[in-house]
Amino acid sequence: MTQTAINPTRSQNYPEWYQQVITAAELAENSPVRGCMVIKPWGYALWEHIQANLDKRFKATGHVNAYFPLLIPLSYLEKEAEHIEGFAKECAVVTHHRLKDDGQGGLIPDGELEEPYIIRPTSETMIGEMYARWIQSYRDLPILINQWANVMRWEMRTRLFLRTSEFLWQEGHTAHATAEEAMAETKLMLDVYADFAQNFLAIPVIKGEKTESERFPGAVNTYCIEAMMQDGKALQAGTSHFLGQNFAKSSNITFLNPQGELGHVWTTSWGVSTRLIGALIMTHSDDDGLVLPPSIAPYQIVLLPIYRNAEEEAQVLAYCQELQKSLQALQFQDEHLRVHVDKRDLRGGEKTWQWIKKGVPVRLEVGPRDIASASVMLGRRDLDPKNKQKLEKVALTTDITSILAEIQHNLWMRAQQRLQKHTHEIHHQQDFETFFSGGDICDTDCRGGFALCYAADVPEVEAIIKPLKVSARCMPLDDNTEGPCIFTGKLVRGRTVFAKAY
Amino acid sequence: MTQTAINPTRSQNYPEWYQQVITAAELAENSPVRGCMVIKPWGYALWEHIQANLDKRFKATGHVNAYFPLLIPLSYLEKEAEHIEGFAKECAVVTHHRLKDDGQGGLIPDGELEEPYIIRPTSETMIGEMYARWIQSYRDLPILINQWANVMRWEMRTRLFLRTSEFLWQEGHTAHATAEEAMAETKLMLDVYADFAQNFLAIPVIKGEKTESERFPGAVNTYCIEAMMQDGKALQAGTSHFLGQNFAKSSNITFLNPQGELGHVWTTSWGVSTRLIGALIMTHSDDDGLVLPPSIAPYQIVLLPIYRNAEEEAQVLAYCQELQKSLQALQFQDEHLRVHVDKRDLRGGEKTWQWIKKGVPVRLEVGPRDIASASVMLGRRDLDPKNKQKLEKVALTTDITSILAEIQHNLWMRAQQRLQKHTHEIHHQQDFETFFSGGDICDTDCRGGFALCYAADVPEVEAIIKPLKVSARCMPLDDNTEGPCIFTGKLVRGRTVFAKAY
Repeated sequence: MTQTAINPTRSQNYPEWYQQVITAAELAENSPVRGCMVIKPWGYALWEHIQANLDKRFKATGHVNAYFPLLIPLSYLEKEAEHIEGFAKECAVVTHHRLKDDGQGGLIPDGELEEPYIIRPTSETMIGEMYARWIQSYRDLPILINQWANVMRWEMRTRLFLRTSEFLWQEGHTAHATAEEAMAETKLMLDVYADFAQNFLAIPVIKGEKTESERFPGAVNTYCIEAMMQDGKALQAGTSHFLGQNFAKSSNITFLNPQGELGHVWTTSWGVSTRLIGALIMTHSDDDGLVLPPSIAPYQIVLLPIYRNAEEEAQVLAYCQELQKSLQALQFQDEHLRVHVDKRDLRGGEKTWQWIKKGVPVRLEVGPRDIASASVMLGRRDLDPKNKQKLEKVALTTDITSILAEIQHNLWMRAQQRLQKHTHEIHHQQDFETFFSGGDICDTDCRGGFALCYAADVPEVEAIIKPLKVSARCMPLDDNTEGPCIFTGKLVRGRTVFAKAY
Repeated sequence: MTQTAINPTRSQNYPEWYQQVITAAELAENSPVRGCMVIKPWGYALWEHIQANLDKRFKATGHVNAYFPLLIPLSYLEKEAEHIEGFAKECAVVTHHRLKDDGQGGLIPDGELEEPYIIRPTSETMIGEMYARWIQSYRDLPILINQWANVMRWEMRTRLFLRTSEFLWQEGHTAHATAEEAMAETKLMLDVYADFAQNFLAIPVIKGEKTESERFPGAVNTYCIEAMMQDGKALQAGTSHFLGQNFAKSSNITFLNPQGELGHVWTTSWGVSTRLIGALIMTHSDDDGLVLPPSIAPYQIVLLPIYRNAEEEAQVLAYCQELQKSLQALQFQDEHLRVHVDKRDLRGGEKTWQWIKKGVPVRLEVGPRDIASASVMLGRRDLDPKNKQKLEKVALTTDITSILAEIQHNLWMRAQQRLQKHTHEIHHQQDFETFFSGGDICDTDCRGGFALCYAADVPEVEAIIKPLKVSARCMPLDDNTEGPCIFTGKLVRGRTVFAKAY
């Protein structure tokens, strides 16, 4: 049996493997605060790269950033009925604004607030209030604002990155003069997310619309990108909501059109969160730990100097630093290469395995013999750790960017093939049930995955799938085929993706 | 009398002028949440540039970013006695984790927490708890982590950017094996802040140490950079704290040294906040509104197309876009120029004044006549609005970066001269009192400013200065002179800067 760096392996215990990958890569850990995580430097660097790349895309599509208050008056949340219904069960409530002595050497809350505040679970109501003040006429439209922020939803069962009480995200909030414009914005941002997931994170996604029961509380339409994890479960990686005039009405956001008529604006909201890091882990990592696409890796290349004495050390470090400098001058995806020299006083094997577990795409070992032959030993994270390749130093600087591009492409292809392999068209309710109870309904090795079928968006279907712990993930866009619902027999247009989900 | 874009002017009513500059530049406004502001896109763009520039400096000095929870268990804050004493009076307390029907159609807090949480006013105690888990031996040291975050201190009297209940900041938290290393880190970050303030924000600052009563709650030494606003008041623009072993002891952060002995680590913390935007406004702006140094201006150059008909419009816009492209290829302070073409359908005068009030360093007017003579009309924010300069198009691309550098330098020089002019050495208590009650103690026009004098750091002096609404701002570093305290007559080493302060 092969030894792996992560125990258990994916096939032995997938949820525990996930935790162990995070621990081994030092991405995050649970904090003393219920359900809240500490994002450690290596994990936070992933978020910084996500932020930087997405932020460029938001700005390229005409958006600007702003910042709105962390706290929301309770009465604001109450304005939109479905919205408060969706969040009342899981919100942190601020009731006091100072502490006082309890007379026994301790402190207790003091200064009760007239109206409690909620720590934002999302900011539609607060931002709606401000938009109502800012918008008078069609000349003030559109408003295209994004916010990078922390939000809080008091989750009962939490998992690092996937579901935490506090998480980091961005929330876009836009206001438009017409329904058409707002819908175009909603779809544009869905495309931005899909392109980002595929080309930056190397995560293939299905773009679709949510069914009624899965919609954002208060939205008219919710669109999403859904990704498939290695255990066949779905993970919602981003959402874009067409809010119609619901929030405009509850927050009274009105404007005068060019004809001088008063009407309500049309709004959208859209967001992705630190959950994307969970998706990244579960899409690419293997039984040796984290695997990072070069696009997002905090270091794309780590140089590992090998030496036995002070003389060799000086020689090897000089060679490494020269190499680092020439590599840093190169670019991958329009950014200079991120190259690190690991000078720590640790055994070589230990160092190598630390960087494997941290998912660094390329490792370069450099010892006196490599210097003598003007070469390096190259290890790739997308290949077996034992599979090392001798590369001439001159070839390195000409080839390294294509090697990184190849790694990026390989990770993408693996994930893309997995998604295709584990997505099955299903035509009968019986097959649907067999599929999701782990049975074999086709000639491929199908343990879990996505079921693509005609299904009516009605409570009756919800009732059938719920006991299977399956949910409708989305109705893929641009599917104009028609067929009978496999549950009700009703003719429906377009199919729905079902899956177990994170 | 000259008309100004901002009313009142600085000399008429300084605090109201400040508010009006913010409103006119659309930087921020008060939100419906007590003491919390909304940072509008133009204001947030300033914060983004502050973040980007500082973040580079932090990384260049070996720091990494991470993220710690928003909420802090009450018992954590209580661990450090001075610390909780400093923050108990002004903290937002979370006591419940959901809402329930009140039976009358409203909602009330439900699910009381066993232990209340405090929204972080600063994160020493939470980060200390994590460091205690992460650090075992000297090999784990130093830890050099920074966090970009929102924090909350329930202020009773708030002012946009200067003092708000919620604000954005960064907080660096480092742990070291020796006192010397921790002190070197404390001083290093003070230097980083001073260099950033002077070279990026064009704000001259005095580096110094806080007196005992002005120290951060729990710190052994607090160092700061102090800036002088145009009304002669001081503004603390950044602080760096040597925490000794105080927090290490209260959080029990221990490590084994190379000799195998167990000891407590030495920690530091340091931060700057959105307050810097207040400092920026009050250092450079004038009676026509915001004035921005080119380094931080969201747009450094705005092109203002002038035309009377569709034909001219096409010609002028094409010319502007060509100009924009060639300007964007140039660099200022290692970044590509940020150039905007204002195509809005607004009267030219209105447009021009909007950009003046927003502080854009350079305006370029382009009409058919300018095109005919292959030139532009250039207006500079550091000069009188009426003072426009005809510049040949060819000269523009060669000269514009030196024009921007000149503006940056001019703003710096004005602020530097103001600081020098209004800083006075004072040798007698009587002069001190006269100085701060608006009297004339010297031959310059001194209304307010900084008083530099020998003063003992004792409660007795505090008692004298407090009624004057004056505080000790800092004891400038590297002042090895000696003299008698002007209040007590005691011989003291090094002088202290006193001022009224924000």
